[in-house]
Amino acid sequence: MALIVQKYGGTSVGSTERIAQVAERVAGYLARGHQVAVVVSAMSGETNRLVAMGHELGGPAASRREMDVLTSSGEQVTVALLSIALLQRGVAAKSFLADQIALHTDGAHGRARIERIDTEALRSEIAAGVVPVIAGFQGVNDLGEITTLGRGGSDTSAVALAAALEADECEICTDVEGVYTTDPRIVDGARRLQQITFEEMLELASLGSKVLHPRSVEFAGRYRVPLRVMSTFVDGPGTLITLENDTMEQAEVSGIAHAVDEAKITVSGVPDLPGIASKILGPVGAKNIEVDMIVQNTGVDGMTDFTFTVKRPEYEATMALLHDVANEIGAREVTGDNTIAKVSIVGVGMRSHAGVATKVFDRLALENINIQMISTSEIKISVVIAERYVELAVRALHDAFELDLEPS
Amino acid sequence: MALIVQKYGGTSVGSTERIAQVAERVAGYLARGHQVAVVVSAMSGETNRLVAMGHELGGPAASRREMDVLTSSGEQVTVALLSIALLQRGVAAKSFLADQIALHTDGAHGRARIERIDTEALRSEIAAGVVPVIAGFQGVNDLGEITTLGRGGSDTSAVALAAALEADECEICTDVEGVYTTDPRIVDGARRLQQITFEEMLELASLGSKVLHPRSVEFAGRYRVPLRVMSTFVDGPGTLITLENDTMEQAEVSGIAHAVDEAKITVSGVPDLPGIASKILGPVGAKNIEVDMIVQNTGVDGMTDFTFTVKRPEYEATMALLHDVANEIGAREVTGDNTIAKVSIVGVGMRSHAGVATKVFDRLALENINIQMISTSEIKISVVIAERYVELAVRALHDAFELDLEPS
Repeated sequence: MALIVQKYGGTSVGSTERIAQVAERVAGYLARGHQVAVVVSAMSGETNRLVAMGHELGGPAASRREMDVLTSSGEQVTVALLSIALLQRGVAAKSFLADQIALHTDGAHGRARIERIDTEALRSEIAAGVVPVIAGFQGVNDLGEITTLGRGGSDTSAVALAAALEADECEICTDVEGVYTTDPRIVDGARRLQQITFEEMLELASLGSKVLHPRSVEFAGRYRVPLRVMSTFVDGPGTLITLENDTMEQAEVSGIAHAVDEAKITVSGVPDLPGIASKILGPVGAKNIEVDMIVQNTGVDGMTDFTFTVKRPEYEATMALLHDVANEIGAREVTGDNTIAKVSIVGVGMRSHAGVATKVFDRLALENINIQMISTSEIKISVVIAERYVELAVRALHDAFELDLEPS
Repeated sequence: MALIVQKYGGTSVGSTERIAQVAERVAGYLARGHQVAVVVSAMSGETNRLVAMGHELGGPAASRREMDVLTSSGEQVTVALLSIALLQRGVAAKSFLADQIALHTDGAHGRARIERIDTEALRSEIAAGVVPVIAGFQGVNDLGEITTLGRGGSDTSAVALAAALEADECEICTDVEGVYTTDPRIVDGARRLQQITFEEMLELASLGSKVLHPRSVEFAGRYRVPLRVMSTFVDGPGTLITLENDTMEQAEVSGIAHAVDEAKITVSGVPDLPGIASKILGPVGAKNIEVDMIVQNTGVDGMTDFTFTVKRPEYEATMALLHDVANEIGAREVTGDNTIAKVSIVGVGMRSHAGVATKVFDRLALENINIQMISTSEIKISVVIAERYVELAVRALHDAFELDLEPS
């Protein structure tokens, strides 16, 4: 018997038919002797509908507090509907809103952080055989006001509850069957991973693999909550996200992520002096523009080139800003390209980069794909290439690292 | 300067455009120096949409508690939207859910009764110039669970708040311009009443005049809250509902209500013995069938006839039940008619009935309309007639009592 926290996302509870299926699934776990606590999102489309109405009348600019009151109603609907569906099947169940389990957050409306959860009521319900059905995404602050956790908030709610309840596992039940070696829409041979580490998942999640929000992965890693991504409607073991990846220690690469929503900006002929990077990036950061990759080559003749990437929607604004900065610091020119993509190879097995990097460069050269930028972290190698090659690059690298084969 | 509680119903907040208009209306009251607290219903159609989803999954039979969690989300949406719209216009506003103002009810989910309201927070917000926007229809019980007040619940919420806050007036803002002498769709000359007493309103409300739920009128009467029914979107004074009707003391009749959703059942040839009424109506009451008018004539030769009315949807079930009862008590026969209507003349001025009754009977005779049953209360005379004559009867009686003319 295990205590399992299950989180069902918007598409899993997107209609009364689907909610009935979720109820059947929960009932199946109980029949197999498990204890279950459930966290649900709003029905798919509902949060967007509510946000749109709020924006018509003034939106967060008028009141972040009230936007939270508005959007949190979506989860209230689903906890009630799922509880009804469970009770209808003879499963003892009870809905809980954030204030009813004292899921306390700080006061930051729209992006609140969880501070504490009072699990006493939940524990006694679970011990009495009741399935608590808890509204995700929402919290309550010290003034008794409703807060929301921001994007990916329900995942975070589920992980936080699993941590607080010391659950054996937190299942993220969604519309995909797990975490894949790469996007199955691009590579036919993309393979579901049995396990992956938090670190790897974090890199994949932040690189545009939309299965889990990075914040929830980080949270799970910090509190050592075993996390499993699995399908709500297709039976299967999903992908277990753990601290240590036993089964895959041999595999140097776990997955390949890509992101096309990128742009790069190069400041050329920059005097190679200490502090020059902050003179270039300071004004960008001050405008709340997020910078991703940053590359600076060793200078030649006291001059250097400085390149960085931003999200594509920020490209025009950043270019305008950099023209002023370039004048100030006496740079030769500012050039940019908003038709680039980033491809990243992720794996805890690549503690030594040389071999992996060589294989990446060789294979992309074989495909005649020019690498415009390279950046590495401890478990990741990212390359920037022209956007039009991104699918070719992902397929080629998936093949090069034999990711379609189960590691031996 | 007055403290006014305003309640806006579902059609008044049925779209973001209308919510914006409500915000303008509230802002206008503040500009004229009033203090305002607002109670809102769910957007029109929303409660029905939620209830329908709940019913698909098991409905109140599975859980009344969860149906309340479900339906109360509708008001949560509107308090947030209206608060946003007010803040957008520079009006300080703050939403409140039932638990945030400790609007305590008993535990009866779906038909809870208000027990107490903690007005401290509301009073200090109002004193600080903030417009509290309060979710109608919902409460919280002693377990901290959400309850709802049943049909007409938002009216009751508003009246209870007005009583607790000792407000100068409670405005019920709706899609009609007030209470009329009769249904304006039937009588062109139907006139908006300037004032009406709680007693009269209670009779009119329970007789199918849908402006206000009887429970809220009763509540307002008990706590002496001056109630005003008025239009949200058309300027005008509406109708004031008060304890004493100063301006209209001369008018013997205030209004004419009608209800077509009726059926009558006659048990003929009943032994005229003590206790016979309860033998007939006991089984009906035991099935939770509501009986409206009851008429029993003085017996002749130890036998009598017994007639009563029920709502039309209960007609078949009641007839079936009465056939058994008739056998038991030795009645001659049971007959019924589900094509009847009830027309009621209401007015505190009719403390002596004779004159009014005579005028009713004369005029209906003049129109060749046969009266099938008569029943009187202190301020009301009701007659049952064939349904096909109901519009003719209402028009004729409206004319007979000269209700199109303002009382002198």
